[in-house]
Amino acid sequence: MSVITAIETYDIRFPTSLERDGSDAMNPDPDYSAAYLVIRTDDPDGHEGHGFAFTIGRGNDVQTAAIAALKPYLVGRPVDDDLGAVWRELVHDSQLRWLGPEKGVMHMAIGAVINALWDLKAKRAGLPLWRLLSEMSPEQIVDLVDFRYLTDALTREEALTILRTGRTGREDRTSDLVRNGYPAYTTSPGWLGYDDDKLRRLCKEAIDQGFRQIKLKVGADLEDDKRRLRIARETCGPEIRIAVDANQRWDVPDAIAWIRELTPYDIWWVEEPTSPDDILGHRAIAEAIAPITVATGEHVQNRIVFKQMLQAGSLHHLQLDAARVAGVNENIAILLLAAKFGVPVCPHAGGVGLCELVQHLSMFDYVAVSGSMQDRIIEYVDHLHEHFVDPVVVHQGRYRAPAAPGFSSTMKPSSLAEHRMDDAINRA
Amino acid sequence: MSVITAIETYDIRFPTSLERDGSDAMNPDPDYSAAYLVIRTDDPDGHEGHGFAFTIGRGNDVQTAAIAALKPYLVGRPVDDDLGAVWRELVHDSQLRWLGPEKGVMHMAIGAVINALWDLKAKRAGLPLWRLLSEMSPEQIVDLVDFRYLTDALTREEALTILRTGRTGREDRTSDLVRNGYPAYTTSPGWLGYDDDKLRRLCKEAIDQGFRQIKLKVGADLEDDKRRLRIARETCGPEIRIAVDANQRWDVPDAIAWIRELTPYDIWWVEEPTSPDDILGHRAIAEAIAPITVATGEHVQNRIVFKQMLQAGSLHHLQLDAARVAGVNENIAILLLAAKFGVPVCPHAGGVGLCELVQHLSMFDYVAVSGSMQDRIIEYVDHLHEHFVDPVVVHQGRYRAPAAPGFSSTMKPSSLAEHRMDDAINRA
Repeated sequence: MSVITAIETYDIRFPTSLERDGSDAMNPDPDYSAAYLVIRTDDPDGHEGHGFAFTIGRGNDVQTAAIAALKPYLVGRPVDDDLGAVWRELVHDSQLRWLGPEKGVMHMAIGAVINALWDLKAKRAGLPLWRLLSEMSPEQIVDLVDFRYLTDALTREEALTILRTGRTGREDRTSDLVRNGYPAYTTSPGWLGYDDDKLRRLCKEAIDQGFRQIKLKVGADLEDDKRRLRIARETCGPEIRIAVDANQRWDVPDAIAWIRELTPYDIWWVEEPTSPDDILGHRAIAEAIAPITVATGEHVQNRIVFKQMLQAGSLHHLQLDAARVAGVNENIAILLLAAKFGVPVCPHAGGVGLCELVQHLSMFDYVAVSGSMQDRIIEYVDHLHEHFVDPVVVHQGRYRAPAAPGFSSTMKPSSLAEHRMDDAINRA
Repeated sequence: MSVITAIETYDIRFPTSLERDGSDAMNPDPDYSAAYLVIRTDDPDGHEGHGFAFTIGRGNDVQTAAIAALKPYLVGRPVDDDLGAVWRELVHDSQLRWLGPEKGVMHMAIGAVINALWDLKAKRAGLPLWRLLSEMSPEQIVDLVDFRYLTDALTREEALTILRTGRTGREDRTSDLVRNGYPAYTTSPGWLGYDDDKLRRLCKEAIDQGFRQIKLKVGADLEDDKRRLRIARETCGPEIRIAVDANQRWDVPDAIAWIRELTPYDIWWVEEPTSPDDILGHRAIAEAIAPITVATGEHVQNRIVFKQMLQAGSLHHLQLDAARVAGVNENIAILLLAAKFGVPVCPHAGGVGLCELVQHLSMFDYVAVSGSMQDRIIEYVDHLHEHFVDPVVVHQGRYRAPAAPGFSSTMKPSSLAEHRMDDAINRA
């Protein structure tokens, strides 16, 4: 029986603030970073599991320390352990849960570990993660999900019904995905730190590259927002969807007033209008700005908050994040909740490696859960992919389905070595 | 001008699991711990600021690392810096906030630092913290509060009105507090790991000691809960309030069914019936079990979630925690929200030093915010006070008003030395 023999952690940082890439109303100067881990085993196959939490700079050392604190739960464990059971053991550890529960640094650390275990599992199976998940039975999938705190909205039986329904046409959708890919939108034109000429040029490039939706950052200055939206709309024409993203900048009354000022520019969605914790605030905003829709999720801490946002009608596009909640298992719960409420999932991506991860989740959703691409789209940002062994391929505005085994989460050894901030090699 | 010269951190752990003190339905074996810090200055007065985050064992190293990561924000800073500005700088740091935002390990670390700064400020003023706060003007107090994400429920002007109204009778309430103290209830009889004889004996002792309210842990086994409640009710008689605490054990439908079974025992409140993140779930439970009331808050991550629980009618007793949110400043915001909605604050305490801290917040509330003790009561647990320089004094079921300068947060040097788990002295 093969076992996990070591967990190595790496504090990886990129100096992205120098170019103002990623600049928005709340994050003027991010240094995109990853608290990264590698799982090693004694199996002769030599496969490793890679995973990470994404941060934007300071504090990445704390996030890395939190991952390292999970080593005792992993080293010595059989490589083929049931990942539903591992998830429950980590998330519900009676002492660790005090640090959340199920939120913040410790929850993201568990997410990084769970994702690395899935990367290992998919590599060992010789399949890309989306395909490994899509080939599991409904019973196997619901066993991965913890329904604690969900049963007033979604029971195990309801989830099974969704997944059994999702089996119809699965092979056709898999073929479609391999042939045609999955729709993407681009945020690259819209960073707040870019000047008008750069905005105009990048909008044009986005259309030339085949994107049918772009996103602009807003929320710092109303007149600037109007001018930038006017430029984008003029450049893109009426057919391209333009979403805006406020990155939590507003209080509820301010959000409503500000968004109403942007109505003339035909906005597709308003993203993160206020605190990600404010379920009732999002609902109040959604009701006030209709028919403009609300998107949120990249900072939503766990499935319990998503459950309430769906119950309350707080969002119309659910933007799950691969590295915020506790990994693949919790994101399966979130995909099932979204399917139950009929809300399209449009993942958050960008950062370091988030595009690489979320493509697997959306493709699994298409093949086996919602069965639909209607109004579903994955964010794309063209940064830092060169550091990954199996980077995303976006062509004509669509993500190509990844074919390599694993979760696409493995960074190149040269990138790890070059961008590592911690000196000591933290071997288990 | 005096400045902060060093931050020392300590990973402090007590082996409380050996006696099953603190055992409940979710936490069978806590080892009460503190991620502790000491702020040193170059002022000739020699005062230090002491603060801590409370945890229950594993992960206390991660919590301590998070506090240590804040050293660069503090060392070199003037000792008399405005604590409203310091709070905003730490909580809204554009990179650190990604680790929350405003929740989990990093938010608790900021809370520990903020509380230590208040301890230092109160020592330098020669006043216990509750009195220092009570003597501040309404304008000074609202300047400490960040109203971001609150203004749909509480504006700065409304807070000023509450505080100005609270000035009437302030001297009388201060005298009353010094003379008569503040009501306490005891959780000591009700830990789930205690047998029936110990429960009966501790109930009797609680009444003999003058307590008028006790609390029992529930949620592991329904028949056990009924038997233990019957014993407690028989021992205490009909006049004593008996609260129960489920420590997040139930889903919403289970909570409603279980609590209805406990109705015959005349329960005062049901505490933490489900996930602390479930604002809508708490509301559903509250509506279903009325007139039994709901209490929650010890795991509520920040003022934004409290705001929504008050807006939704999810709770009837607000149990703020001194070491979960970002310290004194955020708890002032929470006291103001509770006053706005007319909900009594009944702080969570116990753990390591939580009784020592929250007494100051409730006493400030009485003197300067709500102006009332009606249905307000502070939890009391008789553990670990011997490690503090200025421990709480509870007499005849009431907290005596602390008289020593500071926040009562200073542990004895001998206790720090004896229970320290980290080897290196982490000096800034």
